[in-house]
Amino acid sequence: MNIQELFGIALPIIQAPMAGVQTSALAIAVSNAGGLGSLPCAMLTADVLRAELEAIAAQTRQPYNVNFFCHTPPEPDPERETRWRAALAPYYAEFGIDPASVPTGGGRSPFSAELADLLQAFRPPVVSFHFGLPSPELLRRVKSWGAKVLSSATTVAEARWLEANGADAVIAQGLEAGGHRGIFLSDDLTTQIGTMALLPQVVRAVRIPVIAAGGIADAPGVKAALALGAAGVQVGTSYLLCPEATTTALHRAALKSGRAEHTALTNLITGRPARGMLNRLMKELGPLSAAPPAFPLATAALAPLKAGAEQRGRDDFSTLWSGQNASGCRELPAAELTRALAAL
Amino acid sequence: MNIQELFGIALPIIQAPMAGVQTSALAIAVSNAGGLGSLPCAMLTADVLRAELEAIAAQTRQPYNVNFFCHTPPEPDPERETRWRAALAPYYAEFGIDPASVPTGGGRSPFSAELADLLQAFRPPVVSFHFGLPSPELLRRVKSWGAKVLSSATTVAEARWLEANGADAVIAQGLEAGGHRGIFLSDDLTTQIGTMALLPQVVRAVRIPVIAAGGIADAPGVKAALALGAAGVQVGTSYLLCPEATTTALHRAALKSGRAEHTALTNLITGRPARGMLNRLMKELGPLSAAPPAFPLATAALAPLKAGAEQRGRDDFSTLWSGQNASGCRELPAAELTRALAAL
Repeated sequence: MNIQELFGIALPIIQAPMAGVQTSALAIAVSNAGGLGSLPCAMLTADVLRAELEAIAAQTRQPYNVNFFCHTPPEPDPERETRWRAALAPYYAEFGIDPASVPTGGGRSPFSAELADLLQAFRPPVVSFHFGLPSPELLRRVKSWGAKVLSSATTVAEARWLEANGADAVIAQGLEAGGHRGIFLSDDLTTQIGTMALLPQVVRAVRIPVIAAGGIADAPGVKAALALGAAGVQVGTSYLLCPEATTTALHRAALKSGRAEHTALTNLITGRPARGMLNRLMKELGPLSAAPPAFPLATAALAPLKAGAEQRGRDDFSTLWSGQNASGCRELPAAELTRALAAL
Repeated sequence: MNIQELFGIALPIIQAPMAGVQTSALAIAVSNAGGLGSLPCAMLTADVLRAELEAIAAQTRQPYNVNFFCHTPPEPDPERETRWRAALAPYYAEFGIDPASVPTGGGRSPFSAELADLLQAFRPPVVSFHFGLPSPELLRRVKSWGAKVLSSATTVAEARWLEANGADAVIAQGLEAGGHRGIFLSDDLTTQIGTMALLPQVVRAVRIPVIAAGGIADAPGVKAALALGAAGVQVGTSYLLCPEATTTALHRAALKSGRAEHTALTNLITGRPARGMLNRLMKELGPLSAAPPAFPLATAALAPLKAGAEQRGRDDFSTLWSGQNASGCRELPAAELTRALAAL
C-alpha cells in the first residue's frame, strides 16, 4: 500500500517534522498541496501546541501529521553536567557569561498522557514518533481516534521492532538524513546505514509500508526511493529555505553556501546524535564528544552562548541541521516544492 | 553518455574489483555476460598479473577493467609499528606466535611505470584507480593505448578533482560500499556520505559520466541509481557468493548469516578505512583505532594471527569485506547475477 492510500493524500510526499525551524504554517502549506504536512511538537509547550493544532484545523481539511519524541528523560547527573560546563567554560569567558547564571534543564519533553489528552480533541490523522514508540497504553490512546502511527527505523532490527510493537508504517531513516537520528535499540553509530542500503532491506524485512528518508532532495530522489520499494518519502532539508519555514537567516545563509556540502553527526547540541552543518563548537570540540550530558540536557548550557554569538551575527553555537543533500533547497513556496518533488 | 556507450558493453553493470576475493575468473564471467568485469591488481605480483591478463585475453573478447591503488607508500615508522605490535601482543601470546618472527612490510603496491609497461602489451580497455589518480605521466601512459580511466570519489570535491585531473568517468562511492573507501583529499570520515546524497550531487557537479557504487544489490537498486542520474553502476558485495569468486568459506558463511546486517569502517586490516563485517579484532580494539600504522603497513603484523585463527576455523582476524547491503548475495553464476542486476 502506498502512502497516498494509507493517509488519503494525493502525493507520495511527507514533509519531515523539523523542530526549531518550522511551525504549523509549513505543515498547512504542504497538506494543502497534497502532501502530508508535519508539525514537530517536541519543543512546544501544551499551550503553543493547542494553538498550533487550532491553526491547522482552521486552515486545512487535509490529513496532517504531528510528531513527538518518546525518549525516557534522564536523571540529571551532576558529574556530567560539571564536565559539560567545564568544556564550555572558555566560551562563557569569551562571551562574558557568568556560568552560575546559566540554568540546567530539558528543552524537549517526551510524549505523555497530558499531550494525548490535548491531541484527542483534534484527532490528528497521523502521529509520528522519534526514538521508538511511547508506552503501549499511550499508543492505544493515539490509535483510539483512528490515527495512523509512524516511527523511524535506522536499522533493519529497529524496523522489525516497530512493526512488532504496533507501528502502521515505518520510516527507514538513512544515515544521510538531517536532524536527530531516530536510533533507539543501540547507541552504536556503526549500525547506521545509508538509504540506498537501508531502504530495500527494510522493505524486505517488514510487511507494513516503508517510507524512505535521508538524502532525498528532488523528484529523481523520490523516483529512486519508489524504485527501491518505498511506499512514499519523507523530505526535510529541501524545505528549509521555503518562506513558510522559520529557518533563521544564519541557517539559511549556511545552507546556501559551500558549507552545506559537509555535515556531521553531532551530540553537542542536545546529547543525542543529530546531523547538521559544522559550527565552531563542533569543529573545536569534535562533533561527537564525551562532554555533553544525556539527551536532552546538553541544550540548556548552550543557550546563552548561542544567543550571544547570534547577536554578533555568528553561528558558532547555532543549530544548523541539514541532511547530506542540501542540493534540493529552493526559495520556493512549500506547495510548489511539494508538487515539484512529486513531479515524477 | 551511459557506460554501455562509453565502454562498448551491453549492460550498465560494472563488477567491482575486489582484491583478495576474486581473480580473473569472475571478471571474465561478467564481461562475457555483457557487464564490465574487473580484475583487482593491488595485491598481485607482476608475474601473477601477467598470467591473469593472459587468461582474460584468452577467455573473453569483451571489454574489461583492471584496477590499481595509487597511494604513496609511507615511510616505515618504527614507533607506530611498535605501538601496533603492542596492541596485538596479547593475540600473539594466545596463538603462540613469537612476535620477533613476524615480518613487517607492505602487501599492496601502488601503480607504477613497471606495471604500465606490463599493461601496455595487453591494452586493457578500462583502467580504474582507487585513492585518486597516478602521476600525470603514468596517466598519459595508460591513456596512450586508448584506455578509459576511472577513479572513485567519496565527496563532491573529489569528483571535481578527478574530472579536472583527467578521469574519463567518476565512480561516486557512497558510504554504504564495502572494502576500502576511495577517500583521498581528506582523512576526515565525517565527509563520507551515502549514495542517495552523493550520487545526485556528483551528477550535478561534473560533466563526465558518473557511476554509482555503494548499497546497490539488485535490479531495483540499479534502477534507483539510474533514476538519480547514474550512467551505470558498480556492484561488489552481491558477487561475493558467486562460484567464480574466491571468497573463503569463513567469509561466505558470515555473509549468509545475520552478521551481514552490521558492518563498520575499520582501519585495522590495512591502515586505511574499509568496510567489512565485524571480526573479533574490530570488536575488541574498536573498528577505527589509532593503533595501526599507515596504509598498507598494518597487514603484515596481522597475517600470522589471521592464519592461526583460520586454521582453527575462526575469522577473528579475517578480512570480511562487505557493503551495507548484502541482501543481493546469491550463490549464482556471475553471468546470471549480472543479467539479473540489469533486468530493469
